[in-house]
Amino acid sequence: MSKLRVAVLGAKGRIGSEAVRAVEAAEDMELVAALGRGDKLETLVDSGTEVVVELTTPASVMGNLDFCVRHGMHAVVGTTGWTDERLAQLNTSLAASPETGVLIAPNFSIGAVLTMKFAQQAARYYESVEVVELHHPNKADAPSGTATRTAQLIAAARAEAGCAPQPDATVTALEGARGADVDGIPVHAIRLRGLLAHQEVLLGGEGETLTIRHDSLHHSSFMPGILLGVRRVVSAPGLTFGLENFLDLG
Amino acid sequence: MSKLRVAVLGAKGRIGSEAVRAVEAAEDMELVAALGRGDKLETLVDSGTEVVVELTTPASVMGNLDFCVRHGMHAVVGTTGWTDERLAQLNTSLAASPETGVLIAPNFSIGAVLTMKFAQQAARYYESVEVVELHHPNKADAPSGTATRTAQLIAAARAEAGCAPQPDATVTALEGARGADVDGIPVHAIRLRGLLAHQEVLLGGEGETLTIRHDSLHHSSFMPGILLGVRRVVSAPGLTFGLENFLDLG
Amino acid sequence: MSKLRVAVLGAKGRIGSEAVRAVEAAEDMELVAALGRGDKLETLVDSGTEVVVELTTPASVMGNLDFCVRHGMHAVVGTTGWTDERLAQLNTSLAASPETGVLIAPNFSIGAVLTMKFAQQAARYYESVEVVELHHPNKADAPSGTATRTAQLIAAARAEAGCAPQPDATVTALEGARGADVDGIPVHAIRLRGLLAHQEVLLGGEGETLTIRHDSLHHSSFMPGILLGVRRVVSAPGLTFGLENFLDLG
Amino acid sequence: MSKLRVAVLGAKGRIGSEAVRAVEAAEDMELVAALGRGDKLETLVDSGTEVVVELTTPASVMGNLDFCVRHGMHAVVGTTGWTDERLAQLNTSLAASPETGVLIAPNFSIGAVLTMKFAQQAARYYESVEVVELHHPNKADAPSGTATRTAQLIAAARAEAGCAPQPDATVTALEGARGADVDGIPVHAIRLRGLLAHQEVLLGGEGETLTIRHDSLHHSSFMPGILLGVRRVVSAPGLTFGLENFLDLG
Repeated sequence: MSKLRVAVLGAKGRIGSEAVRAVEAAEDMELVAALGRGDKLETLVDSGTEVVVELTTPASVMGNLDFCVRHGMHAVVGTTGWTDERLAQLNTSLAASPETGVLIAPNFSIGAVLTMKFAQQAARYYESVEVVELHHPNKADAPSGTATRTAQLIAAARAEAGCAPQPDATVTALEGARGADVDGIPVHAIRLRGLLAHQEVLLGGEGETLTIRHDSLHHSSFMPGILLGVRRVVSAPGLTFGLENFLDLG
Repeated sequence: MSKLRVAVLGAKGRIGSEAVRAVEAAEDMELVAALGRGDKLETLVDSGTEVVVELTTPASVMGNLDFCVRHGMHAVVGTTGWTDERLAQLNTSLAASPETGVLIAPNFSIGAVLTMKFAQQAARYYESVEVVELHHPNKADAPSGTATRTAQLIAAARAEAGCAPQPDATVTALEGARGADVDGIPVHAIRLRGLLAHQEVLLGGEGETLTIRHDSLHHSSFMPGILLGVRRVVSAPGLTFGLENFLDLG
Repeated sequence: MSKLRVAVLGAKGRIGSEAVRAVEAAEDMELVAALGRGDKLETLVDSGTEVVVELTTPASVMGNLDFCVRHGMHAVVGTTGWTDERLAQLNTSLAASPETGVLIAPNFSIGAVLTMKFAQQAARYYESVEVVELHHPNKADAPSGTATRTAQLIAAARAEAGCAPQPDATVTALEGARGADVDGIPVHAIRLRGLLAHQEVLLGGEGETLTIRHDSLHHSSFMPGILLGVRRVVSAPGLTFGLENFLDLG
Repeated sequence: MSKLRVAVLGAKGRIGSEAVRAVEAAEDMELVAALGRGDKLETLVDSGTEVVVELTTPASVMGNLDFCVRHGMHAVVGTTGWTDERLAQLNTSLAASPETGVLIAPNFSIGAVLTMKFAQQAARYYESVEVVELHHPNKADAPSGTATRTAQLIAAARAEAGCAPQPDATVTALEGARGADVDGIPVHAIRLRGLLAHQEVLLGGEGETLTIRHDSLHHSSFMPGILLGVRRVVSAPGLTFGLENFLDLG
């Protein structure tokens, strides 16, 4: 079987340089280009790139993707800053190249994506749900974006299923003890030296609890998701938003 | 909305008596009969029973279900001892009463069912998977039936997805240290005073782990699954095997 | 070896009736009296009681203990409502009966006591410490008294050791996300159907974390602490406050 | 306050180079020398070294320590391979330099040391104790040395306290399910991609469990223990074996 010809844009960055190593180590891929700031995109054409891993900046990503799509190269995109306007513009490009696929993923951690998916599925079957996220103490926001998003998805799933509000008989509480309220789901943020990024969804019903926990112990945890995206995007024409669409959860 | 008319067979047993209380407490159900050993099945007809919760013994269950199906009553069955022959016999009864539904569930704990389902779905995305079950020290078998079943389902999912064998560089090991081998999945059984029934599936990949944990802290944990079965079986004609078929995991 | 002759006061209450069973089951003890409201204290004398387990009410406890101490019976006390004035009064009684011992314990759960002790000991060696308590959703206060006390003990140990304030770079936070502040220690309270009483102390330092978790799954968890108190109080004359004083943690 | 003058031997190794960074970052220390293979020990004298951190090899450590002790420099030693004979030889050197202190520690992780200590202290108060260790799948031995040592210490503490054997009603078991037997304590070894080094001690009694968990997420976790050793060894003349002796656990 011939190997997938993969290029990395943003290859000098922290995630980019790990992506370079991950592509090199994948048996079914060949790294054909690794471009940093200032390198010419024409290199992608010369090297016969089939899939581009786009890990640059919001300022560069639109131009890069426009070039890729026009040349029929698929793309897996980790760069952030997507607005409805930008997505519409990308869809216009893709309409002119109907066999090309682009995957944009806000989170390439398979574990984070599975945690959100499972939490959504389980949420309607339990009376109580709370989210705890744990991060290193240098983090500036609390709760994490992933925890907030998880709580929103849980709340939406419960609303759709017609769940009753969560039971909570708290009468006297110290301020903050019961966490932040995200659409009715309590979210607690812990900051601890020694940790990286961790999240726990606790669900409780009559006589039992279900806990889904994701521990991210190293930034390399994004690599399996990026490689999975590369393998799947070649047969997924058009725009796909979110890695969960490439997971087989049947 | 009129309430579902529910009867409990085996109403004096430990699970049966909890089922009686659970049906009584459910706002959308009315308990119309609670039969123990020696009580007449005709009571079910007289009381206008729509759904029977069958929690008796392998010796009684076939006769009870035959009666229910002939009278067009749906059934939710927790009694064990099902063989292919028994299932075939039940299917024959059901063929003559095509609008009647029967749910047989080896495990009514929604958490246990979800844990198995999620473990199966996640298993293909991780290099390593192990199962840990924790129970009270009066348990006679190790590992638990649920843990064995979970490991088998995980192994089957991995085989179907073409996963490589799990990495394990162990060269020198104390006997038993790496657990029992169930179809290639290590399973560890812990026995601890103070516990009831708990199970943890650990999945590990590059830089991250995913843990799905189910804690059963009281036998009442079966009740939400039984009630869910009652509500769903009325619109599921024929035989359904396994509570997972009534969970919306889309 | 002759068995310890033990009586239970408040024997009809929830904890009291469990204490009756626990004393009866203990091989080195003999239950010689089990008194409820209205029963005469003289029964204690007639039955040759050596140790009284006092599980009544704040209204009864002082009279009961006065009687016990005057008759040279040791006491293990779970009744609450102790003030400095009451303790002084009890010390006066004990001064007149110098061989009699009384143990008063706000918490008879050995696990809760060990968790507090270990958390205090470990706290000075870690940059970060947070407390998470998890309880059933019928609980009226948040955080629990045990969690608040644990956080206070941790804060005191850190102050004594001259620890720096905990690192926390949080700039933007949803209200409540970072928990309640108890003397500088963040405390988070989770309320989940299916749980009873649980507490986790998380400590984090460079590249590692230490977690001490106590799960109370049944009210019977107080019994080993009560029995331990009974065995030790007979050789501990005077007033002892707190079960931790009877644990050998050398 | 003047800073402690610290030198690192074995400064080019993986742990050694982290020790160099840790000493440089410590506000109360000054790194005065960082020696690798072939560098002259006289540099230690010239630089006015007060404490040496010895992280070389079993082949070099005796000569290095002999030099240090003769020159009145304290030492903190992470190098392994200690025999009774070697310890005796070191004690002889120290006898001639009665104000010099040497700390030898098989494990500089404060969390690992505290876990062992707490497990020993708690073990006598619970009916059941099991140990679970979790490591990356490249590890050659199972269970880990730390887990084996922890189980031995637990077993010794239980024997000393006269504990009954653990309850275990297992009649039918898959081979390995109940773990390895280390002096009567079941020990389970989990190997999972994504993990580094983790250990959990589970203790169970009537109605409650206590869990002590240590997660080592990065090799830097040894640094706080090394720095603590440096600070304490200057006032601990003679030989100290084990970091636990420098922890205040009163």
